[in-house]
Amino acid sequence: MEIKTKITLSNYRSESDSIGSKNIPQSAYYGVQSQRAAENFHITGLSLHPEIINSLAYIKKACAFTNCEAGLLGKKKTVAIIQACDEILNGKLHEYFIVDPIQGGAGTSINMNANEVIANRAIEILGGNKGDYTLVNPNDDVNCGQSTNDVIPTAGKITTLRLLEKVHKQLLRLYQAFLIKGEEFNEVIKMGRTQLQDAVPIRLGQEFNAYAVVVKRDLERIYKVMDEMRSVNLGGTAIGTGLNADTQYLQRIVPNLAKISGVKLTQGEDLIDATQNLDSFAVVSGVIKTCAVSLSKISNDLRLMSSGPRTGFGEINLPAKQNGSSIMPGKVNPVIPEVMNQVAFNIIGNDVTITMAVEAGQLELNAFEPVIFYNLFQSIDTLSYAVKTFVDNCVIGITANEEHCRHLVNNSVGIITAICPHVGYKKASELAKEAITTGQSVRELVLNEGLLGEEDLDKILDPIHMTVPGISEKKLLHIS
Amino acid sequence: MEIKTKITLSNYRSESDSIGSKNIPQSAYYGVQSQRAAENFHITGLSLHPEIINSLAYIKKACAFTNCEAGLLGKKKTVAIIQACDEILNGKLHEYFIVDPIQGGAGTSINMNANEVIANRAIEILGGNKGDYTLVNPNDDVNCGQSTNDVIPTAGKITTLRLLEKVHKQLLRLYQAFLIKGEEFNEVIKMGRTQLQDAVPIRLGQEFNAYAVVVKRDLERIYKVMDEMRSVNLGGTAIGTGLNADTQYLQRIVPNLAKISGVKLTQGEDLIDATQNLDSFAVVSGVIKTCAVSLSKISNDLRLMSSGPRTGFGEINLPAKQNGSSIMPGKVNPVIPEVMNQVAFNIIGNDVTITMAVEAGQLELNAFEPVIFYNLFQSIDTLSYAVKTFVDNCVIGITANEEHCRHLVNNSVGIITAICPHVGYKKASELAKEAITTGQSVRELVLNEGLLGEEDLDKILDPIHMTVPGISEKKLLHIS
Amino acid sequence: MEIKTKITLSNYRSESDSIGSKNIPQSAYYGVQSQRAAENFHITGLSLHPEIINSLAYIKKACAFTNCEAGLLGKKKTVAIIQACDEILNGKLHEYFIVDPIQGGAGTSINMNANEVIANRAIEILGGNKGDYTLVNPNDDVNCGQSTNDVIPTAGKITTLRLLEKVHKQLLRLYQAFLIKGEEFNEVIKMGRTQLQDAVPIRLGQEFNAYAVVVKRDLERIYKVMDEMRSVNLGGTAIGTGLNADTQYLQRIVPNLAKISGVKLTQGEDLIDATQNLDSFAVVSGVIKTCAVSLSKISNDLRLMSSGPRTGFGEINLPAKQNGSSIMPGKVNPVIPEVMNQVAFNIIGNDVTITMAVEAGQLELNAFEPVIFYNLFQSIDTLSYAVKTFVDNCVIGITANEEHCRHLVNNSVGIITAICPHVGYKKASELAKEAITTGQSVRELVLNEGLLGEEDLDKILDPIHMTVPGISEKKLLHIS
Amino acid sequence: MEIKTKITLSNYRSESDSIGSKNIPQSAYYGVQSQRAAENFHITGLSLHPEIINSLAYIKKACAFTNCEAGLLGKKKTVAIIQACDEILNGKLHEYFIVDPIQGGAGTSINMNANEVIANRAIEILGGNKGDYTLVNPNDDVNCGQSTNDVIPTAGKITTLRLLEKVHKQLLRLYQAFLIKGEEFNEVIKMGRTQLQDAVPIRLGQEFNAYAVVVKRDLERIYKVMDEMRSVNLGGTAIGTGLNADTQYLQRIVPNLAKISGVKLTQGEDLIDATQNLDSFAVVSGVIKTCAVSLSKISNDLRLMSSGPRTGFGEINLPAKQNGSSIMPGKVNPVIPEVMNQVAFNIIGNDVTITMAVEAGQLELNAFEPVIFYNLFQSIDTLSYAVKTFVDNCVIGITANEEHCRHLVNNSVGIITAICPHVGYKKASELAKEAITTGQSVRELVLNEGLLGEEDLDKILDPIHMTVPGISEKKLLHIS
Repeated sequence: MEIKTKITLSNYRSESDSIGSKNIPQSAYYGVQSQRAAENFHITGLSLHPEIINSLAYIKKACAFTNCEAGLLGKKKTVAIIQACDEILNGKLHEYFIVDPIQGGAGTSINMNANEVIANRAIEILGGNKGDYTLVNPNDDVNCGQSTNDVIPTAGKITTLRLLEKVHKQLLRLYQAFLIKGEEFNEVIKMGRTQLQDAVPIRLGQEFNAYAVVVKRDLERIYKVMDEMRSVNLGGTAIGTGLNADTQYLQRIVPNLAKISGVKLTQGEDLIDATQNLDSFAVVSGVIKTCAVSLSKISNDLRLMSSGPRTGFGEINLPAKQNGSSIMPGKVNPVIPEVMNQVAFNIIGNDVTITMAVEAGQLELNAFEPVIFYNLFQSIDTLSYAVKTFVDNCVIGITANEEHCRHLVNNSVGIITAICPHVGYKKASELAKEAITTGQSVRELVLNEGLLGEEDLDKILDPIHMTVPGISEKKLLHIS
Repeated sequence: MEIKTKITLSNYRSESDSIGSKNIPQSAYYGVQSQRAAENFHITGLSLHPEIINSLAYIKKACAFTNCEAGLLGKKKTVAIIQACDEILNGKLHEYFIVDPIQGGAGTSINMNANEVIANRAIEILGGNKGDYTLVNPNDDVNCGQSTNDVIPTAGKITTLRLLEKVHKQLLRLYQAFLIKGEEFNEVIKMGRTQLQDAVPIRLGQEFNAYAVVVKRDLERIYKVMDEMRSVNLGGTAIGTGLNADTQYLQRIVPNLAKISGVKLTQGEDLIDATQNLDSFAVVSGVIKTCAVSLSKISNDLRLMSSGPRTGFGEINLPAKQNGSSIMPGKVNPVIPEVMNQVAFNIIGNDVTITMAVEAGQLELNAFEPVIFYNLFQSIDTLSYAVKTFVDNCVIGITANEEHCRHLVNNSVGIITAICPHVGYKKASELAKEAITTGQSVRELVLNEGLLGEEDLDKILDPIHMTVPGISEKKLLHIS
Repeated sequence: MEIKTKITLSNYRSESDSIGSKNIPQSAYYGVQSQRAAENFHITGLSLHPEIINSLAYIKKACAFTNCEAGLLGKKKTVAIIQACDEILNGKLHEYFIVDPIQGGAGTSINMNANEVIANRAIEILGGNKGDYTLVNPNDDVNCGQSTNDVIPTAGKITTLRLLEKVHKQLLRLYQAFLIKGEEFNEVIKMGRTQLQDAVPIRLGQEFNAYAVVVKRDLERIYKVMDEMRSVNLGGTAIGTGLNADTQYLQRIVPNLAKISGVKLTQGEDLIDATQNLDSFAVVSGVIKTCAVSLSKISNDLRLMSSGPRTGFGEINLPAKQNGSSIMPGKVNPVIPEVMNQVAFNIIGNDVTITMAVEAGQLELNAFEPVIFYNLFQSIDTLSYAVKTFVDNCVIGITANEEHCRHLVNNSVGIITAICPHVGYKKASELAKEAITTGQSVRELVLNEGLLGEEDLDKILDPIHMTVPGISEKKLLHIS
Repeated sequence: MEIKTKITLSNYRSESDSIGSKNIPQSAYYGVQSQRAAENFHITGLSLHPEIINSLAYIKKACAFTNCEAGLLGKKKTVAIIQACDEILNGKLHEYFIVDPIQGGAGTSINMNANEVIANRAIEILGGNKGDYTLVNPNDDVNCGQSTNDVIPTAGKITTLRLLEKVHKQLLRLYQAFLIKGEEFNEVIKMGRTQLQDAVPIRLGQEFNAYAVVVKRDLERIYKVMDEMRSVNLGGTAIGTGLNADTQYLQRIVPNLAKISGVKLTQGEDLIDATQNLDSFAVVSGVIKTCAVSLSKISNDLRLMSSGPRTGFGEINLPAKQNGSSIMPGKVNPVIPEVMNQVAFNIIGNDVTITMAVEAGQLELNAFEPVIFYNLFQSIDTLSYAVKTFVDNCVIGITANEEHCRHLVNNSVGIITAICPHVGYKKASELAKEAITTGQSVRELVLNEGLLGEEDLDKILDPIHMTVPGISEKKLLHIS
């Protein structure tokens, strides 16, 4: 980040902190501490996630309100601070959050960036000039009763909850899309494969139903894991002992925040624990990772089943969404599942980063929230977006090559398994070997050897029967 | 593994499968398929986990019983098979499970190793000679109505449940140990640190209580995650369609297995999903990993707090369990927390392996259970053992250097934070700077500048007060 | 990404491909294929790295030039294409690269985005209207003799080389900074610690010199690993067989590209291998990861040594770069080392992602370059930026608390180790225990017990001597 | 580990260290410190790798020899110690190495286990009774001039070098096996696939040659990375300052060790750096990981190409090494590639563990060598064994289904790419679409539309030509 050095009196105001003084652009709502942080941390070159800016606005609003209730903050200041927060929640002032998402200092720079922007906007609202912190002070007023160490984890949890809701919504759409396809392909008989080798028949609809069940499991896990995010440490201040937090404030701040943000929240039972441990974020990341892994597996399946068009499995067709090649005309590639794979790989890597950062906490604090948030928010967001395009541009448009699927089943040797209970594993193995070597059908071989009657054999080898548990057993066939 | 090649007629029996025939040691209960697997997979050189051998015995026993109920297996065979299983459960025959825990083939070799050992033992019980599979057949009888693809995931889940119970028990001991220390150190005032820098006072007991709370959270997560393991796919056979499984068997097998194994189990709602997806193992691994991460953080804390004896923090003493150095006399190192760190690192790596293996499932099956089990069982086991030694050889013996702790608090500048609400952040910053530069105490400086009266100051700076939320606020002090 | 749907004739042109037709903003240099990709892949919401856009411009320029030489592309078209590429290299047109860095399709969308932008700019240069691909065709002309499958890996390697040069430059600065500090602190005697326990004396300068040596090793590794990036598969086209690439073009393209880009490059010895395998990127990521790990360890050391100011190790002071706390006045935190830690965690996670993506290649291609590039470029970039701030805002400003360091040494028990060869390990252990228990100094105890004479003892216990190999041995002291 | 508590005077001897005294089995060569460690660390329940026991024996032998040369160790003791070491190198006494591979304490327990076993055996050789450390002392004699902190990293490096040689040998066999198959399949024309979609023709031999090239690259990387292991810190003692190491010893120990062990070694240029940093192990792990990743990709390819027998790609056959299923007769699965995949997953996870452990070093030492060694040795060993079975039981037995491969090429649409330079991308795309929709062959369509003459078309569509760079270009065909 290039820090502009040309300074004229009219364009800049001077601000100072305990490190020294600095010129700040006159128009800027941020102050000296944000400016220092922007200079210290040019790491990703990216901006903070807008949702964490919003979460900070909710918190600062709730704190101002609660401090006012407790008599610690004057009404005029309170009103101004709350108005500034509301403006942020309406999408304004976000451009003045200038600190890099990956930064040292446990999020102090994020917190102070919020404190400064809100203070300066409140000062303006009260008729003052930006930088005149005697009117509204970023530390004493906006940050009153708070510490980075309770504000930032709380903001991270609110943000995570909001993002989880979004991904839950997209996954619900995916679940429904798979169910619909499960219904649509219910009669499409195809060869099941284990270890990529021909196994026994299955219906394509059963496969898509199974995908729906996996996603349902992920939906439930995401729903449940939200509880890990609802317990916040706001009120614990610096190290969870609540130093400098008023008793009344301490009791009301979390209920007030819940009401103001519209997010269900409770205060942690042990604020010291809640300040030093970020294990809950690791748990959320783990759930997102597991979901990504399952979707990656499904994507791999779709890529396998749609392999071809002429020399692959050719069982299904993915909708053609773009030219597949700059050199090979007519090539259409499974680009949507491929992006899902990549998002999954990225999420798995992010989970390792988050894990390491959670492990690296020391004594009263884990100072590595910034990198945790950066990775976790990206994991959830990219999963949301990937699922969205997966539903819209892939799953709902999948079609089946029913005839080809049936042809493969009829041509297969794997159906020998259904014969096995009637002739024994050893005999069946010999038949299978013979079928593969000679190219003869299993049906033919069994009849030739007189092992089963034609009527029984037809029942046993009916591929649809093979896909329904319990239908093909000996007793129904009246065979010993 | 050296495969002995000297073969004499009297020492070996010949067995054959569809690949060909092989000589098997006459005394061996395993058969040709186990032998082939042992030759194909000499990877870790280790043995299967004894608990998965037991789980297989439970399953084979339950299957034999259920198949007999359903009229698919004769009584004599059933009794013999069940007796063989019981012998395994009593710790016998384990040495005949010769396949490597990391192996190709989705666990078929593990399953067949069990089928062969049980068949051969059952044959003996029925008065036959090992290898005479006309009496009891490993595939047709012991494996009746089963497939590797439903047996192995089920065995993995039962095993995981058993191991989770063990680690839960150890963690409960750790939880209690931390609670006791929390009580013991309740009055030990010390300096809290954030980002390794002096922050504000805390009581050592609060820190140990916080550790107890973390562990409690892990205990709850482990308890809950057991539900992920209770849904099994036994009855689904090859690909979840239940091909070759009798209807009656299909309905009774899981309840019977639950009763026989003493483990609460339910049959998966969609056996096709349950056969191809191993996401539940990833979830369990994630929970274990999170627990390991928290314990590693705690171990780091203990190592920091006990650093010294003369040039470190020196706040606590870990029990001396062994000489710390081969060259430095009298050195005692924090070896128990260090082993916890290493176990945590290992578990984190195992989680990546498990994640990749879960992702790699294809179509109707995930063939990578062996490496998942190997890593997951190791993660849970090593966590159990590490927690055990952590409790016994470290936590319960920790003592506090109370005087040194108090000395550090009295000498610190961080207590200035308590002054902050009374003089403002800016003024407080100046005082802090002066104190650090001049070496004067905060108390002195505040009094010299006449910022607060002595009585108020004593209340504000009382370190114990600083550790109790809400005590030090302005209103109690009747200060503006 | 919201795709605007209000379309008026005057603002849009219609373009079509084999999927169908689409309206494209009249002003846009990208075309229909870029537009489709932007709609299909809204994943990170971020832009392509500017350096990969530049790399593509180099490649397209070199290809046009080489195709022209080979008589496959007319002079006028060639000149126009080259001019368009030069404009991109001058920082223009980058805003028309609209595809998300994480995308499906092996980078076809990135390649086509480049082809379309260059074609449309070339069309304009030739006096035509954007979209009139009869003048210059994105596929037939700009992509002539190329495939995404050789263009994109080549672009990735050129980009990586450029970024590696940058990080090498920053690490060289860090190396020098550590050397300077090593010199500066050469006489500062302090206590060495192993496992956080007092060990034997060391000089602070030795520690900083050791940091320089680590960085030097990383510099060498980075320099060497660049060779992994110099072998490119340009000319291999779709699958490395060079289909549709002219023989003359095939021979000249890589030397021409090397000359035009100023980057040393060679053509892969086996283009089929070079097209399907991305292992070289995993190797580069591994080297960057190792460097990050070492810097994270050093950062941890700096945080430990600067812990305090009053209750920690307090051996060194990091420069105060910003207020450390929103609530604790005067607190200064080690924010720069902390950001280095976080960058390291992020890079370690990225390495896992890259590893998985490299593993996921199939048959003739690895389609997962986009996620590899996204992570690898971020790893190298963030390492560069983190090292830059680490040098400028931390290392060069570190100061030593020499007196405190010496005090700790004099007060320590660890120096007993130097006595050990003279009295034996067992006796020395007893003395150490006694010193710790009684608080007596080691010197005192040894003299009291008459174990060594005062003169010898002074030599043996001279802490500076203890830090220089070989000085303190028995022979010099004329002791048996 | 159950510690036996029944103690009788005759079976046990009493040993003491600074922690206290303990009964040790009379027959045991280990002593009190090993015993304590075994009790403190029951983590994996496994034994130390035999190669690290050997490496320790080499080191202790070289140290005794060098100390004797330097006049620090008497001749009789030296001879006895060397004999004890030689016995270990001959495979004796390994059962007395009782400490768990994962342990706290930077390997002190491993080092002391070696010191005690060697001392006790040397005592016996000198005619004494085990435990009589006045004859030969584990610390003062066997460990003379050494510290765990230089012995253990050195032992780890020697061990790694030995294991790397083994895996190099196996990979060389794999390289040759792929080359042979490349030759054997040189004429087998098949369809190339990118993103699992039909691309353009390739020869099966080209694919296997490409595999050989990848392995060759890994061979070179492994060869080069051995240099990372050759620089050892022996002589640095506790923290690299060489305290208590004699000057002459310091100069001769590494050359002596190199000669005695037969391994090329040099002394680190900065022993302080060399003692505290384990980055070289991370680099070795990274190289092994990259190799594993490439082999996993190749394994995936083999599994894909051999998918079938009837409903998959069916291009190649892997040798049948064991029955594939306990329920599906005749099923043969790709079990050898599958085990390679799993070994790769395990190695990738191990790399994460190693990375974390390397990062966790603090100040003068990284205490986490045990978990690094455990994982690294396992990674290299399992890779060796997996490659061995991969060569012997898979690669050398692969056969091609040549006819089926050719049939797929003839039936494919992807060959349209070769037409593209002659008719343009757009026209070619239309033809491709028509071919797929109507089922007509590309050849037919081109001729019907009169786009190319029959003779030219035959040359262009000759699949072998398509696999040789530069053959099919326009100029050779005398087409515009």
